[in-house]
Amino acid sequence: MQTRFTLPQSSIPTHWYNLLADFPEPMAPPLHPGTHQPISAADMTAIFPENLVAQEMTAERYVEIPEEVRDAYALWRPTPLLRAVRLEKLLDTPAHIYYKYEGSSPVGSHKPNTAVPQAYYNREAGTKHLATETGAGQWGSSLAFACRFFGLDCTVYMVKVSHEQKPYRRLMMQAYGATVFASPSDQTQYGQKVQAEDPNCPGSLGIAISEAIEHTVTHPATKYSLGSVLNHVCLHQTVIGQESIKQLEEAGEEPDIVIGCAGGGSNFAGIAFPYLQKKIVEKKPYRIIAVEPASCPSLTQGELRYDSGDTAGMTPLMLMYTLGHDFMPPKIHAGGLRYHGMAPAVSHAYKLGLIEARAYQQTAVFEAAVLFARSEGIIPAPESAHAVRAVIDEAVKAREEGHKKVILFNMSGHGMLDLTAYDAYLTGNLQDE
Amino acid sequence: MQTRFTLPQSSIPTHWYNLLADFPEPMAPPLHPGTHQPISAADMTAIFPENLVAQEMTAERYVEIPEEVRDAYALWRPTPLLRAVRLEKLLDTPAHIYYKYEGSSPVGSHKPNTAVPQAYYNREAGTKHLATETGAGQWGSSLAFACRFFGLDCTVYMVKVSHEQKPYRRLMMQAYGATVFASPSDQTQYGQKVQAEDPNCPGSLGIAISEAIEHTVTHPATKYSLGSVLNHVCLHQTVIGQESIKQLEEAGEEPDIVIGCAGGGSNFAGIAFPYLQKKIVEKKPYRIIAVEPASCPSLTQGELRYDSGDTAGMTPLMLMYTLGHDFMPPKIHAGGLRYHGMAPAVSHAYKLGLIEARAYQQTAVFEAAVLFARSEGIIPAPESAHAVRAVIDEAVKAREEGHKKVILFNMSGHGMLDLTAYDAYLTGNLQDE
Repeated sequence: MQTRFTLPQSSIPTHWYNLLADFPEPMAPPLHPGTHQPISAADMTAIFPENLVAQEMTAERYVEIPEEVRDAYALWRPTPLLRAVRLEKLLDTPAHIYYKYEGSSPVGSHKPNTAVPQAYYNREAGTKHLATETGAGQWGSSLAFACRFFGLDCTVYMVKVSHEQKPYRRLMMQAYGATVFASPSDQTQYGQKVQAEDPNCPGSLGIAISEAIEHTVTHPATKYSLGSVLNHVCLHQTVIGQESIKQLEEAGEEPDIVIGCAGGGSNFAGIAFPYLQKKIVEKKPYRIIAVEPASCPSLTQGELRYDSGDTAGMTPLMLMYTLGHDFMPPKIHAGGLRYHGMAPAVSHAYKLGLIEARAYQQTAVFEAAVLFARSEGIIPAPESAHAVRAVIDEAVKAREEGHKKVILFNMSGHGMLDLTAYDAYLTGNLQDE
Repeated sequence: MQTRFTLPQSSIPTHWYNLLADFPEPMAPPLHPGTHQPISAADMTAIFPENLVAQEMTAERYVEIPEEVRDAYALWRPTPLLRAVRLEKLLDTPAHIYYKYEGSSPVGSHKPNTAVPQAYYNREAGTKHLATETGAGQWGSSLAFACRFFGLDCTVYMVKVSHEQKPYRRLMMQAYGATVFASPSDQTQYGQKVQAEDPNCPGSLGIAISEAIEHTVTHPATKYSLGSVLNHVCLHQTVIGQESIKQLEEAGEEPDIVIGCAGGGSNFAGIAFPYLQKKIVEKKPYRIIAVEPASCPSLTQGELRYDSGDTAGMTPLMLMYTLGHDFMPPKIHAGGLRYHGMAPAVSHAYKLGLIEARAYQQTAVFEAAVLFARSEGIIPAPESAHAVRAVIDEAVKAREEGHKKVILFNMSGHGMLDLTAYDAYLTGNLQDE
C-alpha cells in the first residue's frame, strides 16, 4: 500500500503563505523597547536588512519565493509525507497517522527552510556577514549551511554549556565554515561583563542573543538572523504545510487533527498556518494542536503580554504568551523548546481560539519517541517527540471512541545527534522537572 | 533548473539484479574452510537461513523483491538523485555531476537496503534472533533498525574501541532495542580466550565476527547476518543503481563514469552492477571506478586468492582480492572501508577488466569532503568522501580536456556522526598513514 507521498521538484511552493492576511482580528504591533511606541521599519534595519523587515511587516497574503531560494530548497524539498502504518497497527487504532518528515534536510531539521531565504535576502541587501546565537546548535548549523550557499560569513554565539557538552553541532557549524564562539565570550562588551560578574557562567540563550546583536551593530556589513519567533520566520516555514496539503490530497485524505511541537513556534507555524487559512476562510473544522514541554509552558501557563525576546531587553517588545524574559527553563533535553515566549503570530492564533495547546513532561515524551523509533524506524528529535506524544494520545482516544481520525503531524527533525537523551531515558536517568 | 530527481513509491524496483547471471566468465565457488571443497548449501545453513543461502548461490538474473520488503523500503526509497550544480560551478567544469543520496535512510546510509531483506527472510525462515558484528556501528544500527520491522531480537558485537569511543552509533542500536556487547566480550568462549591472552585487547572486526558466529551456533533459533561482501548483500544493494538509471533517464543523461567507494564492496556493487549489466550486455562504454583508502587497498594492492572472511578462519574461503585475513588496517576515519578483502563479485568484475580501481590517502579525501559540504550542503560520510575525491579529480580532468562528461556517484551516507573526523582534518590533526 502507498505510505510514502512525494512531490517532484516542480511542486516546491512558489509562494510563502502569510497568515496575518487572514486573521479575523489584526495582530498588535511590536513596540520599540525604549519608547514603547510601535516600532518603525527604520528602527529594525539596525539589525535586519530592509527586505526582511518589509517581509516581517507585510500584509500580503502570498509572498513569492525567489527562484534561487527554490533552487536551494530543491536540495531536500519537497520533503516526504509518510503514513505511520506500523505505529497505527501497534496502537490498534482506526486513526490514520501521517507525518511530514523535515529531518530529511542536510542538517536534519526544518530550520534551513528559513535559514536559506534569510541568507538569500541578506546577500541581496549587500550583507557580507551574518551573526546569530544558538542553543543546542540546530539553528546555528542551519544558518552556517545556508550562508555557504550565498557567500556570506557566519558567526555563531553558542551557549557555553552546549558548546562544551554537545560538540557535534558545533563541529557541524565549523565543517560548514562558520566561526563559533562559546557564549559568554570575550568578543563583546556584554559577554565580558557577564564573565566579570560570574567567571563560571554557563551561558544562556538570552545572553547569546545579546552578544550576537552587539556583534551585529559593532561590525560592518553585518546583520543579525533569528531562527524562530518572528513573522518572517513563520512565513518561510509555511512550505511545510503547503506541501502537506498537496500530499494528503494525493493520499485522498483530509486531516481532522494537525499537530506540531512548539518552542519559539516556527515549525508549528510551518505545518499549521496553511491549515489555519482553510480553517478561517473555508471554515474547515480542523483541530490544530501546539505541544510544548511542561517545564517551559509558554502557551499553557504563560500570560499574554508585551515582552522582550531576549534577557537584556534589546529586541522589540512583542505581544506574546510569555513566561517572562528572565525565565530560566530547566535543562530539558529538547533544547529547541527552551524559550520563554511564543511567536506573536502563534500567540495570536491561540488567543483567538484557533488552536489548542497542551504540555507534556519529558519522560512521557521519550516513551512516545522510543515507541515511534521502534515501530516506524525514524528516531525523532526530542522536540518533535513532543508532537509524537500528542499524536499517540489522540490515536488511542480515536480507538477508545471508535472513530477513524486522520492525524497529521510535523516530524520537525531526527534525533541522531540527541542520542544521549535517549540513553538517559532508556537507562532510567531521565527525570521530569 | 531541475537538480532533484525523485521517483514515486511505485517506482521502487520490483526485482534485485544479479550480476552473476551476466558475467562473461563464471565466478569461482566459495570453499569449505575445512575440506577446501566447494561449500554446499547445507554447510551454510548452520549460520544463514536456507532462503538467503539460495539467494547467495542463485544464477537467476532477477530476484523478485517481496512486497513486505518493498513496503519497508518505502520508508526512505526511492532515494533522490541530485545534480551537484554548485560543485560543478566551483570546479568550473563542463562535467555534469550527479549523486544518488543514500544518506536519506533513517540510519543515514545504504546499509538498510540489505538489513531489511535479511531480517525479512530470516523471519520467514523462523529465525527469532539475529547476531552480527559491527565496527564503527553503521551496519549494527541498520540491522537493529531492520529487526524491529520483522519482530526479531538483535545482538551486536561491537569492536571494543568503537564501543568506547563512538557512543552515538551504540546508542542508536540501543534506541532500536538491540543488545550490544563490546567485543571481545565475556559472552563467548572465543571472546574470553582473547581477553585472557590480552586483557587490554581493543578488539577488531575479525574478533567480533568470530564472536557473532559463535553466538549464532550456540543459541537456539539464531542466525548470523553480514552487512557486505556476500553475493546476496550485493544483490540487495542493486536497488541503488536501478533507481539511478531511471532518474538519469528523467534527467535526459547517460553516465560516462560511475563511481563508488569500496570497503567490503556492497555500496559500490549497488550503484555499479546495474550499469555493469548494460556494459556487458549492451556494450555501453561506461567507466566504472571503485575507490578505496590507500591504507586498506585490497583491489589496488591486494592479491586475488582464496581467503577467509574473518580472522579466525570460520567463514567459507572466497576468491577475492585480499590483503590477507590477518591484515590489520590502520585506524583511518572511514571505518566502513577497513576490511581486508573485497566482495568476490566485485573482485571478479575487477579481474575481468570491467571496472577500474584507485586509492586515496585520507587527507585528500577530507579535503574533497569539505569542498563538497561547503558547496553542496551535504556532509559526506568519510567512506562516501572517497568517491567524492575521485569525482572531483575526474571533473577537473574533464575541464582540462575540455570534454563534457556525465559523472554519477553514490553518496552512500552522511557524516553527521563522523564530525570528529572533520574536526581532526580542519584542525590539522589528520595524518595519512
